[in-house]
Amino acid sequence: MPYIDITTTKVATEAEAAELKARLGELISIFPGKSEAWLMIALRDGCKMAFRGTTDKDTAMVEVKLFGKAAKGACDEFTKAATALLNDVLQIPTDRIYIKYEECYLWGYDGENF
Amino acid sequence: MPYIDITTTKVATEAEAAELKARLGELISIFPGKSEAWLMIALRDGCKMAFRGTTDKDTAMVEVKLFGKAAKGACDEFTKAATALLNDVLQIPTDRIYIKYEECYLWGYDGENF
Amino acid sequence: MPYIDITTTKVATEAEAAELKARLGELISIFPGKSEAWLMIALRDGCKMAFRGTTDKDTAMVEVKLFGKAAKGACDEFTKAATALLNDVLQIPTDRIYIKYEECYLWGYDGENF
Repeated sequence: MPYIDITTTKVATEAEAAELKARLGELISIFPGKSEAWLMIALRDGCKMAFRGTTDKDTAMVEVKLFGKAAKGACDEFTKAATALLNDVLQIPTDRIYIKYEECYLWGYDGENF
Repeated sequence: MPYIDITTTKVATEAEAAELKARLGELISIFPGKSEAWLMIALRDGCKMAFRGTTDKDTAMVEVKLFGKAAKGACDEFTKAATALLNDVLQIPTDRIYIKYEECYLWGYDGENF
Repeated sequence: MPYIDITTTKVATEAEAAELKARLGELISIFPGKSEAWLMIALRDGCKMAFRGTTDKDTAMVEVKLFGKAAKGACDEFTKAATALLNDVLQIPTDRIYIKYEECYLWGYDGENF
């Protein structure tokens, strides 16, 4: 039950969105017990954003929402890998990318809560 | 002070958005003390999403943000009803719908925090 | 590491978005230790929203996400100022604006978590 919600100024091409999806599907297994089989992704591209008072370079916020505990070590590894991925696929400067984690304890799927 | 934030691949017609609004306004009273009188809804439709590595079927994430405690029993009932609602109105497969709950303790309205 | 995520029905002009950005960059220092130097803003305008069952007036949800503790006093001051700002720049009725706060403890920047 992970959900990765990406908001960025950049407009992704279809090929870029597909590559992001595929590689996030691999990266998610950094978290023990998580896999692409339960991963949902939202890509909100072309959004109006600002960072440090400027709007002249691309910017991204990655919100990772996990059912249950987010282990610090896994988050460290994921932050490193996902930042590199966004830079590689969408050319977003790494120093304009935030990644935040949220642990969730009430989560439903297919009409029932876990 | 509930806030229901729906992100979906599906593009809702005006009639579908109105029906969702009306029926969520009824469903929200599943939570003790909550009613349409304080409900805010955001419908982010036509979003780029993926679930389980696939993009060929419609997908939705429903984020329910509540001021104060989210009772487990009410969340169970709401998950069941809101999943059926999204399936009924937008034809989103129930096995491609996540619903998550967030309890919030700092919330402002009309310039003042509760 | 503050992130301000604004969702509103109103479509902001370029000048309005720039004014919001500049003034939020000032307001953020209401929070001890926070400044525009670390502020990220997303403006999701033109969104389909409802409040109190109605859609005939503009509506806004402001989600403030902070790394670490959100002091109640600072949140009170920020809610007052940010509500007035949205009303001033985008003419959103103050009684159709929610502001919620989230304290985050796992947050990454430029490939590393704080």
